[in-house]
Amino acid sequence: MTLHPAVAAVRLGVRQELAPFLEVSPRREGDDRLRLVPGDAVLVACSGGADSLALLAATVFEGRKVGLRVIGVTVDHGLQEGSAEHAARVVAQMAALGAHETASIRVHVDVAAGGVEAGAREARYAALAQLADHFGSFLVLIGHTLNDQAETALLGLTRGSGGRSIAGMRPAFPRDDVWFHRPLLDITRAQTEAACEAEGIDVWVDPHNSDPRFLRSRVRHDVLPVLERELGPGVAETLARTAGQLRRDMEYLDAAASERFVEAVEQSAGPSEQGLGFRMGVAPLAHEDAAMTTRVARLAALAAGCPSSELAAVHVEALTELLTGSGRGREIQLPGHVTAYREGGDLAFRRTPPLR
Amino acid sequence: MTLHPAVAAVRLGVRQELAPFLEVSPRREGDDRLRLVPGDAVLVACSGGADSLALLAATVFEGRKVGLRVIGVTVDHGLQEGSAEHAARVVAQMAALGAHETASIRVHVDVAAGGVEAGAREARYAALAQLADHFGSFLVLIGHTLNDQAETALLGLTRGSGGRSIAGMRPAFPRDDVWFHRPLLDITRAQTEAACEAEGIDVWVDPHNSDPRFLRSRVRHDVLPVLERELGPGVAETLARTAGQLRRDMEYLDAAASERFVEAVEQSAGPSEQGLGFRMGVAPLAHEDAAMTTRVARLAALAAGCPSSELAAVHVEALTELLTGSGRGREIQLPGHVTAYREGGDLAFRRTPPLR
Repeated sequence: MTLHPAVAAVRLGVRQELAPFLEVSPRREGDDRLRLVPGDAVLVACSGGADSLALLAATVFEGRKVGLRVIGVTVDHGLQEGSAEHAARVVAQMAALGAHETASIRVHVDVAAGGVEAGAREARYAALAQLADHFGSFLVLIGHTLNDQAETALLGLTRGSGGRSIAGMRPAFPRDDVWFHRPLLDITRAQTEAACEAEGIDVWVDPHNSDPRFLRSRVRHDVLPVLERELGPGVAETLARTAGQLRRDMEYLDAAASERFVEAVEQSAGPSEQGLGFRMGVAPLAHEDAAMTTRVARLAALAAGCPSSELAAVHVEALTELLTGSGRGREIQLPGHVTAYREGGDLAFRRTPPLR
Repeated sequence: MTLHPAVAAVRLGVRQELAPFLEVSPRREGDDRLRLVPGDAVLVACSGGADSLALLAATVFEGRKVGLRVIGVTVDHGLQEGSAEHAARVVAQMAALGAHETASIRVHVDVAAGGVEAGAREARYAALAQLADHFGSFLVLIGHTLNDQAETALLGLTRGSGGRSIAGMRPAFPRDDVWFHRPLLDITRAQTEAACEAEGIDVWVDPHNSDPRFLRSRVRHDVLPVLERELGPGVAETLARTAGQLRRDMEYLDAAASERFVEAVEQSAGPSEQGLGFRMGVAPLAHEDAAMTTRVARLAALAAGCPSSELAAVHVEALTELLTGSGRGREIQLPGHVTAYREGGDLAFRRTPPLR
């Protein structure tokens, strides 16, 4: 039996993701990367869909080669009828696919803050981190694909402007001492479906994924197909790769801006503000481009106490003008009762919370 | 008669664009910004569409206040039947709108290289630069709107990945000693149409703009309306603003990468390559993020003679791995008969063009 190319692609994704954790070669000084040794546990989060089942099967295969224990875990959000039965089926399926251990966890989704999708996501990651701790693992693999990445980038257009809004999901992120990794961001959904079919894995189709009440479902079924049809069949892939590269670019620029901000605060000429407020020198930023000055202005506004939810582009723009001296004013008002003003070579902030 | 808000918005766009050229306040040292004084000429490029006619009318209004001569110019691409008659009509219309002088120029569009749209664009900008020179002006205003910017960003998805591909049009760019400025990038097409209607200006609707053979036309009539319907009515605006911010961000990162590249070449440990080739030290890049190392790798490949048209993401990726030492290989082949290899602490390039 020859190896199906989709199965090979998913396995390669997993192998490449695990490789840095398995390296035994001497590393550079200061490298405190986490290590996996034979007997260690890796969790795979499984919904029962093609993406996560293909991921689990590939992780079992790759994990066996290096002696890892693969734990299949599923989260029951309790949002759909029969979700407990579904979770039980996924557990049985994960065991049948060769997971060394399995677990199902029921969570309570708080829909009050930010809607069902955000609430479910928050509850899911908290539960997965808890399970990882329970199994003594620092690593949870999740099955987001290239298509999820493309959808995330498009969804970003509804949330704001700038590269940050369309930067994709992070390939890896920490939460509660656990690392979440996404080994399938270069793999298409169709590849995971083909991999499951080739391996005879029955997949579940989440009815939420085609429910037009959910924005992500409309992006998947209406928006991306139109883009593919009109712009060409490579659009989802290009969008996903763009999102991934943008995330790196935005993180680089944000880190550079953070350094500039700290320098500017250290080079303030005047005395420290009394009470609520601070000052920063503007001279270090005189020759910086807008890419940097707008970011520093945003950081300064946040540091001064402006709530990020109320800080709009128009505020950042006005503060950037005040910072660079390109505007006419000497003082502006920002959300959160913050006043920004120029004084000497400094930009100063004063916060005057209302009396209660 | 009260001023229509759309007319006011277009005028404000023009006023803000001209302001830096009219400033008389002392500037910082090293500021060699170009100046406009009364009697100077500014060109406005006009197709006869709502965007450019609204731009011309606003420029005539704002120019009069500060004593500028406004020259209306139109380019006849000779691509549609009756284009000469159309150009003559536009000339008459520009004169009626108060342009101090008008001109029409016929260009030959070279469709061989890159298609009709690219050929027309190239011929148009060359002709406009020539006209600016003829009228003794350094400034040409062009009427691209926020919608054009959003379309450009989406079109970028068909051309490659990364922020560069969806960065929008530059707000200003030089060509042949002439500056082209786009004062309407924050104004919607609907605003320019409303402005023309409010001022009783007859507008021409370019049949190419709704010809589904042209990709841009499909983006305008099929893709963006779907995005607006499914994601929400602010999408075009968000996309345009994202594109504009991304351009700044990408230019910043590219400039930073360029500096790093020069530093790395200067810090090469080994002797210079003989003949075709060069070396760069890799130590200065050891602690840089991927956002920077991939850009430096790309610059290095171009400097080594790889043709940009053949340099794909996969090459840049492989070269980045060689540069950072994260790959296993010691040598890779790149397009244009370029070999990149590690030697000591250097990354070296050798180019061996084939015998002819």
